[in-house]
Amino acid sequence: MRVRHVIALDVGGTGMKAALVGPDGALLHRALRPTGREHGPEAVTEAVLRFAEDLRVHGEREFGEPAAAAGVGVPGVVDAGTGSVAYSANLGWRDVPLRSLLSERLGGVPVALGHDMRAGGLAEGRLGAGRGVDRFLYLALGTGISAAICIDGRIEAGAHGSAGEIGHVVVRPGGPACGCGGRGCLESLASASAVAREWAAACGDPGATAEDAARAVEAGDPRARRVWDGAVSALADGLLVCITLLDPRALIVGGGLAGAGETLFAPLRAALAERVVFQTLPTVLPAALGDNAGSLGAGLLAWDLLPDGAASTGAASTEAAASVASATGPAVSVEAAAR
Amino acid sequence: MRVRHVIALDVGGTGMKAALVGPDGALLHRALRPTGREHGPEAVTEAVLRFAEDLRVHGEREFGEPAAAAGVGVPGVVDAGTGSVAYSANLGWRDVPLRSLLSERLGGVPVALGHDMRAGGLAEGRLGAGRGVDRFLYLALGTGISAAICIDGRIEAGAHGSAGEIGHVVVRPGGPACGCGGRGCLESLASASAVAREWAAACGDPGATAEDAARAVEAGDPRARRVWDGAVSALADGLLVCITLLDPRALIVGGGLAGAGETLFAPLRAALAERVVFQTLPTVLPAALGDNAGSLGAGLLAWDLLPDGAASTGAASTEAAASVASATGPAVSVEAAAR
Repeated sequence: MRVRHVIALDVGGTGMKAALVGPDGALLHRALRPTGREHGPEAVTEAVLRFAEDLRVHGEREFGEPAAAAGVGVPGVVDAGTGSVAYSANLGWRDVPLRSLLSERLGGVPVALGHDMRAGGLAEGRLGAGRGVDRFLYLALGTGISAAICIDGRIEAGAHGSAGEIGHVVVRPGGPACGCGGRGCLESLASASAVAREWAAACGDPGATAEDAARAVEAGDPRARRVWDGAVSALADGLLVCITLLDPRALIVGGGLAGAGETLFAPLRAALAERVVFQTLPTVLPAALGDNAGSLGAGLLAWDLLPDGAASTGAASTEAAASVASATGPAVSVEAAAR
Repeated sequence: MRVRHVIALDVGGTGMKAALVGPDGALLHRALRPTGREHGPEAVTEAVLRFAEDLRVHGEREFGEPAAAAGVGVPGVVDAGTGSVAYSANLGWRDVPLRSLLSERLGGVPVALGHDMRAGGLAEGRLGAGRGVDRFLYLALGTGISAAICIDGRIEAGAHGSAGEIGHVVVRPGGPACGCGGRGCLESLASASAVAREWAAACGDPGATAEDAARAVEAGDPRARRVWDGAVSALADGLLVCITLLDPRALIVGGGLAGAGETLFAPLRAALAERVVFQTLPTVLPAALGDNAGSLGAGLLAWDLLPDGAASTGAASTEAAASVASATGPAVSVEAAAR
């Protein structure tokens, strides 16, 4: 059976998630590979290109035709105009013209380049927890903390491609040192790594994880409760800043720490309710797409390049058409650098 | 000579600023009246209606025709859908259907209702310091601190009309009590009132103002320098949060405290430069329209209701047309409740 599809790549600091995505956003095929950061930036580029090439071959074999387009999400500063990655600390990249490299490797198909978190936010907005929500913050609590901001159906990139860096909002002035060089950043207090570090120190097991901390909280361990409450309190303070500035309708929370479910969400909702004064409390929702958000988002970016893409996903496509609402609610779009 | 014009009203907690505004954004006439908050909410409503009525008469007499439309900016929560002011602490209003009341009083002309700060941001974006800037924060440092956020040429209202409340971002956890009920809000540390209060305490003159503080700083008074530096430091911390979250291209600073000019701007730029890590430093600019921003913005909202409004101001009009860029740079729009 011939199935029209696109290649989707979510390139992370340690692993790459890839998918073949159908016109309705269906995941037709998934694959994982290490990024191989330790082999240097050129090797990372080659690993990305080879992964895409192999997916193209796989798609042609399984679905009777080659991918119609490709989308790739990258952590870092993406220049949508030139289609290059200006800078990525996670990948060791500087000025990598990924769009043209990928398009060349894939026989000239259109390629969309986007920011990984914003691609994930796009997917949550169109296919996940943000369906029909015009204004939301999509937050990932993992090794770090970052966010995608959706305003009136569009994922905001900022003037220089770095909007949404909520992980580096200072919530505890003079607090713990953060990887960014600052102190007391949200990320240094409420990321999965921060919770793991604090819980490891509290329980004496250097290998303890954030998941272990959540389990200890559920088992009623008061030390774990203190660690957990500290993280939730910092998170609520950081989110309150976003609520005060942006007045979003929903907060969509994903990433490793969100795996704790109500152990996280119940106290987080309570902490936010305690903090709002004049602000309207947004709905706090778990992300719906899990680890697939980034690759699905990359797939949506790719579909948006095709004339039949927008129609078949029932959503608005690129920036120019962003204000158009679909029947199922406001559609979501994101900056994408099309070739 | 017949001159086409609109009525523009900027309703504040103590005074109302009104204007007749020409199609090119020219201020054809200005007037001020007290709001009369002490006489109760109904009296405030009547004062607004009478002011508008008198402006209509004035315009007809001076310019040979009655105003073609009216715009009004109000501090508080504006419901653009119903054209009413849901809540305004400053005016004592709750659910005042201002748009229909005004239109009735003005013989049925179209009336636009907007938020005062967002109207001011619209004016700075189209006619002032933000001309040609796609993404900016317009900040007013007065009795309180509030902001309008411009994203891709649109002034963001938020999901419930309360976006931009930067004055209530907490920058000193556990700090001074704020009028909102919180502690350590930016407004309690860096507003003109906060500076006046601190300087009054430091110099022993209970009547001292923020302007006095600025003059004492310029005269080299070390006590004044301490007060001033504390406010600038809090302001830079608050703005850094906006930069981290929103990545704006420019910060446009107005309000009473901005009257200090380089006494404020030089240390503020230095404090921001000191704080950015990965963030791109936005341009920090003084607001260009001063006290007229709010009434000019109300006038623009009114012009945007008229078929010839957008064309004659050379800018995009309402939300639907917001992404259209004009020849002089991206145009700016704002939510407006048209009748």
